[in-house]
Amino acid sequence: MNIPKTSYPRIIIIGGGFAGIALARKLSKQEVQVVLLDKHNYHTFQPLLYQVSTGGLEPDSIAYPIRKILKDFPNFHFRLAEVNEIDTTCNTIKTNIGDLKFDYLVVASGSKTNYFGNTEIEKHSMAMKTIPQSLNLRSLILENFEEALLTTDLHERIALMNFVIVGGGPTGVELAGALAEIKKGILPKDYPDLDTRLAQINIIQSGGCLLKGMSENASAKAEDFLEKLGVHVWKNVRVTNYDGKTVTTNSDLTFDTATVVWAAGVQGATIKGLDAKDFVTRGNRILVNQCNQVKGFEHIFAIGDIACMATDEFPNGLPMMAQPAIQQGQQLGSNILKLIEEKPMKPFEYKDKGAMATVGRNKAVVDLKTLRFQGVFAWYVWMFVHLFFLIGFRNRMVVFVNWVYNYIRFDREARLIIRPFKKKFKL
Amino acid sequence: MNIPKTSYPRIIIIGGGFAGIALARKLSKQEVQVVLLDKHNYHTFQPLLYQVSTGGLEPDSIAYPIRKILKDFPNFHFRLAEVNEIDTTCNTIKTNIGDLKFDYLVVASGSKTNYFGNTEIEKHSMAMKTIPQSLNLRSLILENFEEALLTTDLHERIALMNFVIVGGGPTGVELAGALAEIKKGILPKDYPDLDTRLAQINIIQSGGCLLKGMSENASAKAEDFLEKLGVHVWKNVRVTNYDGKTVTTNSDLTFDTATVVWAAGVQGATIKGLDAKDFVTRGNRILVNQCNQVKGFEHIFAIGDIACMATDEFPNGLPMMAQPAIQQGQQLGSNILKLIEEKPMKPFEYKDKGAMATVGRNKAVVDLKTLRFQGVFAWYVWMFVHLFFLIGFRNRMVVFVNWVYNYIRFDREARLIIRPFKKKFKL
Repeated sequence: MNIPKTSYPRIIIIGGGFAGIALARKLSKQEVQVVLLDKHNYHTFQPLLYQVSTGGLEPDSIAYPIRKILKDFPNFHFRLAEVNEIDTTCNTIKTNIGDLKFDYLVVASGSKTNYFGNTEIEKHSMAMKTIPQSLNLRSLILENFEEALLTTDLHERIALMNFVIVGGGPTGVELAGALAEIKKGILPKDYPDLDTRLAQINIIQSGGCLLKGMSENASAKAEDFLEKLGVHVWKNVRVTNYDGKTVTTNSDLTFDTATVVWAAGVQGATIKGLDAKDFVTRGNRILVNQCNQVKGFEHIFAIGDIACMATDEFPNGLPMMAQPAIQQGQQLGSNILKLIEEKPMKPFEYKDKGAMATVGRNKAVVDLKTLRFQGVFAWYVWMFVHLFFLIGFRNRMVVFVNWVYNYIRFDREARLIIRPFKKKFKL
Repeated sequence: MNIPKTSYPRIIIIGGGFAGIALARKLSKQEVQVVLLDKHNYHTFQPLLYQVSTGGLEPDSIAYPIRKILKDFPNFHFRLAEVNEIDTTCNTIKTNIGDLKFDYLVVASGSKTNYFGNTEIEKHSMAMKTIPQSLNLRSLILENFEEALLTTDLHERIALMNFVIVGGGPTGVELAGALAEIKKGILPKDYPDLDTRLAQINIIQSGGCLLKGMSENASAKAEDFLEKLGVHVWKNVRVTNYDGKTVTTNSDLTFDTATVVWAAGVQGATIKGLDAKDFVTRGNRILVNQCNQVKGFEHIFAIGDIACMATDEFPNGLPMMAQPAIQQGQQLGSNILKLIEEKPMKPFEYKDKGAMATVGRNKAVVDLKTLRFQGVFAWYVWMFVHLFFLIGFRNRMVVFVNWVYNYIRFDREARLIIRPFKKKFKL
């Protein structure tokens, strides 16, 4: 890979998510060379992907070109590349566009969907971790309605209008709420020939509560909101399989459906060379110490979702969310500079700023450290915080315009099938 | 196809472009049943596709769900379908989702790219007639820059940064101008490692002037604008082939390039059953009379790009543009209603409202009937007219926000590679 050689130490960052970008920004204008690699040329604001899937936002407004984020930084190099292997002996990474030596390596490769080994579910269900996946889901939802119009088999029509979301975390809850609003606001207008009552939205949670990790209040209220929107909430049910037609569970419950969204788990997106048992712990995450160092190395780090840093409060590792990722990225920036100057690094301390989730218009739940609230005000807070964390003024403006429009008009206009998903559903 | 049978006459419209939508709107709230078929679930505002290709606008903001345009119209049915054949004997159309009988049929299937029989050019060049095509082109342009960074072969790098646009009509001119602005405004910031001077934009026109059909003034000024932006304008040059590496022409001139955009011609998108020599004239368009009737039929019509209606001013048929399409759609709406009431139809008269094209910021050319002007004011007029004709308030708002932002910031932020085009360029 032709990156110019300088006298500065070279820091390679793998991944342009929240963690990688926060770190790169911290290292800007320092006497280091930063090489950031990602297989996409853009940073994705994952918390809003469900709005892309449900036509509320355009994909471009929740993504941002990585080159643009870092364009004013000297000694910064971005490469569109997939990293195949990390050679910790030679301090080299191997990618599809060539090899590159590093002085410091930061793995910020994030997480991917965890199917817990079930290849049938992996093959037939939809995930929502990337923009292309979200667009595929959007196309599928819309194509299902079009197909439902055509079929003369009632059972098949019901299956085409039946949505099963597996996983009761924020992604599942937010998607279920958005689909319920589509059912209520858009379906009757767009598809007068379809009986809206046939559309069902199911959310299945293996545990006993939604939004695990948030307060009991938030969890109960979210469930209440969803039920008011007509979503069927199934708790303590574990999905065992989906063959493209029928979801089976550990109980008698089955669902005939054309659409399963798998939001039931994530795992670290490990890379060969750092994926051995020595390094990796539960959830396929790389074990790191309080300075984000990978076991056995001074100069190799992991941050964000891929890193498993145990704390007193989180003995199984910090939550796989934006906040720990951003904070670790920022802190590691200072720490690497300290390491270069041979000063002691400062251990990471997670500042838990709380969590939030939205269910629908005027319906959100917010858990702050000292304050918990739900409803309209929570919904405004949720919107404000998400606008604030979006990268780029244009994105904020466009998202804001869309939200205002959608709110006033009870609408979601980004309903284009642009990635036709040529699957023909047959029960 | 399960469309309810009513006592109203059934009018089938094939195509949801400018012509088809104008007609459907005109027929709303009348005592007719309207069935509109399109292979996309959205209407595309084609005049702005080049801005999608060059990252200035999101695809969703220049497209609009067809169901939504027509949602308040009773007796209206949209079906996502591809029409394979028209059976004029049985008054039936055959589609991928079944057959359907009609009382009146309107072919508004528009136009497609014309490669004049050259399959090599068709295989290797990019077209820009649909949203998926425009997104492919956007991805290719961005991937070329990423690849240019990686190659160590200077010749190859130059070819990756060399853009050849074939065709000097509005599409070609507008795309060339937009690429020139990317070269000037974005390339140096995003790719500091690339020598911007290597990027070349070429526009090739077989005839002696750009924007054929507009005034001499407009043509000359557009050329002047393009040259000021650093675009190479090649007139009286005919491209003979492109093998994926090198463009050859009817002169000594050749271009080594990874990107050829073919905007050199369109032809009618005919459908089996109406594609025989009896019906079709030059440019693969269906010959119609002044009431848009297809030869030999009282109840079968063609409107828009697909229809070839000769007038005194345009003996070879009206231009393939939005205005004639919209006007024909509106007029045919009244005429079909007259036909049903057994009243005489009114022959179509084209009201030429003029033409315009934009080259870049503050640079456009406008030909109105009595007034011709170029420059800043023309640019404002161009923007105003395009905003006005966009369908949907949200689209207008989002496009407006983007344009203001792009103008102030000299930027185009929709630079996501979301449809990876896995072609690896090798000279």
